[in-house]
Amino acid sequence: MHRLSRRGFLGAGVGTVGAAAVACATPGGGEAAKGGQGDEATDAQGADAAPLAGQTVAFDGPHQAGVQTASQANLALISFDLNEGVDRAGVRRLMNLWTEDARALCGGKNPVGGLEPEMVQTPANLTITVGFGEPLFDKIGLPDQRPGFLHDIPAFEHDDLDPRWGQTDLVLQICGDDAISVAYAMRHMIRSGVDYAHTRWFQRGLSHADGSMADGTTPRNLFGQKDGTVNPHGDEEYDQQVWIDAAADGAPDWLDGGSVMVARRIAMHMDEWEKLDRNSREVVIGRDLPEGAPLSGGDEFTEPDLTKTDETGLPVIDPKSHMALSRDDEKYDAEQRLLRRPYTYDLEPEPGSGDASNSGLVFLCYQRNPDKQFSAIQRRLDGGDRLNEWITHIGSSVYALPPGVGEDGDSYWGQRLLEA
Amino acid sequence: MHRLSRRGFLGAGVGTVGAAAVACATPGGGEAAKGGQGDEATDAQGADAAPLAGQTVAFDGPHQAGVQTASQANLALISFDLNEGVDRAGVRRLMNLWTEDARALCGGKNPVGGLEPEMVQTPANLTITVGFGEPLFDKIGLPDQRPGFLHDIPAFEHDDLDPRWGQTDLVLQICGDDAISVAYAMRHMIRSGVDYAHTRWFQRGLSHADGSMADGTTPRNLFGQKDGTVNPHGDEEYDQQVWIDAAADGAPDWLDGGSVMVARRIAMHMDEWEKLDRNSREVVIGRDLPEGAPLSGGDEFTEPDLTKTDETGLPVIDPKSHMALSRDDEKYDAEQRLLRRPYTYDLEPEPGSGDASNSGLVFLCYQRNPDKQFSAIQRRLDGGDRLNEWITHIGSSVYALPPGVGEDGDSYWGQRLLEA
Repeated sequence: MHRLSRRGFLGAGVGTVGAAAVACATPGGGEAAKGGQGDEATDAQGADAAPLAGQTVAFDGPHQAGVQTASQANLALISFDLNEGVDRAGVRRLMNLWTEDARALCGGKNPVGGLEPEMVQTPANLTITVGFGEPLFDKIGLPDQRPGFLHDIPAFEHDDLDPRWGQTDLVLQICGDDAISVAYAMRHMIRSGVDYAHTRWFQRGLSHADGSMADGTTPRNLFGQKDGTVNPHGDEEYDQQVWIDAAADGAPDWLDGGSVMVARRIAMHMDEWEKLDRNSREVVIGRDLPEGAPLSGGDEFTEPDLTKTDETGLPVIDPKSHMALSRDDEKYDAEQRLLRRPYTYDLEPEPGSGDASNSGLVFLCYQRNPDKQFSAIQRRLDGGDRLNEWITHIGSSVYALPPGVGEDGDSYWGQRLLEA
Repeated sequence: MHRLSRRGFLGAGVGTVGAAAVACATPGGGEAAKGGQGDEATDAQGADAAPLAGQTVAFDGPHQAGVQTASQANLALISFDLNEGVDRAGVRRLMNLWTEDARALCGGKNPVGGLEPEMVQTPANLTITVGFGEPLFDKIGLPDQRPGFLHDIPAFEHDDLDPRWGQTDLVLQICGDDAISVAYAMRHMIRSGVDYAHTRWFQRGLSHADGSMADGTTPRNLFGQKDGTVNPHGDEEYDQQVWIDAAADGAPDWLDGGSVMVARRIAMHMDEWEKLDRNSREVVIGRDLPEGAPLSGGDEFTEPDLTKTDETGLPVIDPKSHMALSRDDEKYDAEQRLLRRPYTYDLEPEPGSGDASNSGLVFLCYQRNPDKQFSAIQRRLDGGDRLNEWITHIGSSVYALPPGVGEDGDSYWGQRLLEA
């Protein structure tokens, strides 16, 4: 009897769970195959003894994997700038290389020329996702192909952005349930691209382990909050909120079926937060801690009643709470919802800082248009969110994620852009 | 049908897998219960849907957990110095607090006064282990109770030690399969002890995920080597190599049943290592890459034949290889073997360093006497190990681990020392 992980059943509408996840371009979403059993990979380890090892997420499909995929335990977000003199032809060669390498690694296969075949045998739901930053388009001589909404997130009053985590030409998001496989995939991708691009920053993140959360449970961050309750579920909501429809969104054709990732690094001031009692923590968020239910009642997935008042006439959900302010706009349900896929960072305090913690979120969100989605919400939060006292945005970058690759689409990442 | 993880069957001779892991002091080794099902913890999440969540490692027993326990996916190693003015009575109160808190956290229960009961529900094989550093003994007025072998590891020629990772008064080793639970446990223990001790450094480490390796498989490090092949197996070898027999080892009585942990931070120069072809990598180590078998033949667990020569008369295993030099002493089998429990670190490169990687090992090893075990081996390696070209020891510290707690022993960590 073989146990499949919870992740095999989450994240996408089409529950394709089975063999040959690597080669197939599943109609309706390649990423749906998360948790499928890559036959190649399990031979080496013995499937029954290591149920997680050979689980693969389909690489090919209309959308890139790693977005509509249940969060894996580990994140390595690596950004790059092009090397001096690399032009559009160079980026085309890089994307050809990276696409082949990523497909092999995510399928538990040794990439061409790889000297460490032992290190690829446990993909454990590995996904590798590419993104293009605003500066790339001038460098490859295609400024007209830059989508209008691909620019720096507007400056907000409470931001304290460090250029160390700033905008770059390219990004790779590598996620997986085995930290060693993620570390190896990162090394391989960096080496593979070394003639074309060099690293700018790494952001490592952690989430709950595969098997540590019941199916459909929303993960918690270090403030103890459930984070991701209002995320989209199912293909229809992903189409509404996440995947770009080029014609409807006024986006260039090459981005049809893609998305936009906003990566914010958010420091969480643990020492101060932990001085609050539980009631205050719940007021700040607008939800209770045990269930993540709105303070107006119900369970985690009950719609909050922002108009409900207590016996003294005060609103039960503070209008300045994080949850209330996020939603306080008539456009919220119509166009501002987005996919959040946050990871926790928890590092050594900077030497000499005197801090006892260096923790926070690598907050990743995905949407069709960051001007209308992330920035619209963040403008409200910046103006009054009670939570601002305990968090600071310290890094910001934005990347257009080209659509997936496979039989019916691009043969390598960004083909329609790079052969424009 | 409930699937227990591979970790439930590893790490100890007594395979006690079952309920009530928290309260029982299993004869022969409390740590043997790793993978047992903490009933308290699973109620909250649903055991079948989250098979890893409620798995607990018994806290009470003759030895501390976290040593004879199969490596979990995450390590947080945190060191502390005593606050100004904290004396023996203060340390006694700290150890009382920490023992109770660690027992609760490892059992998936809310520690007394804990404001985040939601964060303790997925212990996922959490272990918390305490160690006492050399400087502690003078500070608590018990210099005579310091074991003679508890001092800085001798300086070696190839060391490049950074005091940032140096000796401290105390250490907590927190390991678990869920990164968020480990992060929370670390926060709780730091806060709990804040009146008595402050943090000096954190060392975070990663290993393979639960479920990603077949039973009994030796994990690999980022050089692609299997690391831990010659570790002890079973209670008898642990008694020979790891657990202190106070009378036989000339150690103070309070340390009977304890051990000594040496923590070395070892930078691995990935960029240079990856320039080697596979054959050269195997010569440097003395083992092949696919199986970890000695180059003299056989499989991973075959004894190497250091005298075997090829047709030209040269030794098949280079005498300067890492494996050959580790063993090149008549005392090796009799008294130098030890337990290695290495974790990988894989961090952002230091800003401005120009490096493309910042990777290596938090190399933890456990023994009865570091003078006779770690230092004896390291002296040979420092003198000639071919691997020295690709690794540098950059941090060093040593801690005496008091024995476990429970009905038949100390009622809190270090009781026999602190009430001496």
